[in-house]
Amino acid sequence: MDNEPSQFLRAFRPGFRWDGVAHLPYKDEGLAPFRAISRQVLFDAPDLACELRYFEMAPGGFSTLERHEHAHGVTILRGAGHCLIGQTVRAVRPHDLIGIPAWTWHQFRATGAEPLGFLCMVNRSRDRPQLPTEQELAALGATPAVAAFLAGAPYQTPKP
Amino acid sequence: MDNEPSQFLRAFRPGFRWDGVAHLPYKDEGLAPFRAISRQVLFDAPDLACELRYFEMAPGGFSTLERHEHAHGVTILRGAGHCLIGQTVRAVRPHDLIGIPAWTWHQFRATGAEPLGFLCMVNRSRDRPQLPTEQELAALGATPAVAAFLAGAPYQTPKP
Repeated sequence: MDNEPSQFLRAFRPGFRWDGVAHLPYKDEGLAPFRAISRQVLFDAPDLACELRYFEMAPGGFSTLERHEHAHGVTILRGAGHCLIGQTVRAVRPHDLIGIPAWTWHQFRATGAEPLGFLCMVNRSRDRPQLPTEQELAALGATPAVAAFLAGAPYQTPKP
Repeated sequence: MDNEPSQFLRAFRPGFRWDGVAHLPYKDEGLAPFRAISRQVLFDAPDLACELRYFEMAPGGFSTLERHEHAHGVTILRGAGHCLIGQTVRAVRPHDLIGIPAWTWHQFRATGAEPLGFLCMVNRSRDRPQLPTEQELAALGATPAVAAFLAGAPYQTPKP
């Protein structure tokens, strides 16, 4: 029985791929800044009010710095990295939970030697992301930890 | 910065626990059959149309055999076991995806030596589960693989 194909089960495969799940570009090129990140949509069904997506970035990769009205529920699945949520930079590791509230700037970066992969739950019906203006980016960068994060360097806590 | 508490990040802790996430009973005792299973609600916010829950059963544990109108999107996170979806029994392992459609009988069992833990995405607004009648249970058990599953034994594929 275990070897029969099933319409209900999509098996996990090496390299964080799944049977019957397309490995997609993160977004259209040129639409927004991002680097070395892919997207796989794990659940997207009319009778589920949310989608579950798996995003993965290679070392040095990052998601788009953006904000929007819709919220995200993120569960780290693989690797290590840092995230920016509002004015806060935090290291993340597998199975950490990150809640991204409405209208909050956010970005994920694979700041270590391994890929960073995470699940992201989001409403099926949602608004389009906004990108920061030059002014908003400058305001974010006024915080040293945020500036280091945006420059791609993991922030080092200053020694007292 | 990494050591500061954050309202956005709930860190993963040993034993599949999370900061700020309550370790709850699966259901009220006596409401339905189940064994050695716990529930942790990872995301439950008014601006997310789904909840994300983490269920974990100890070896020999099982969820309730039930069906309902609402769908589930399940991602195995830990351990190994078997699931019944409709008339199909399948072995599951970490990161496998299981979609449970409307009105489909389903149950998870930790049939191995380790706990079985999984994420379950579900609409916040949903109907109450139905339990099988004696007749429905007998009909399910007419399939040998399902009978073995319901008896708590991992199904062995017959040798030709």
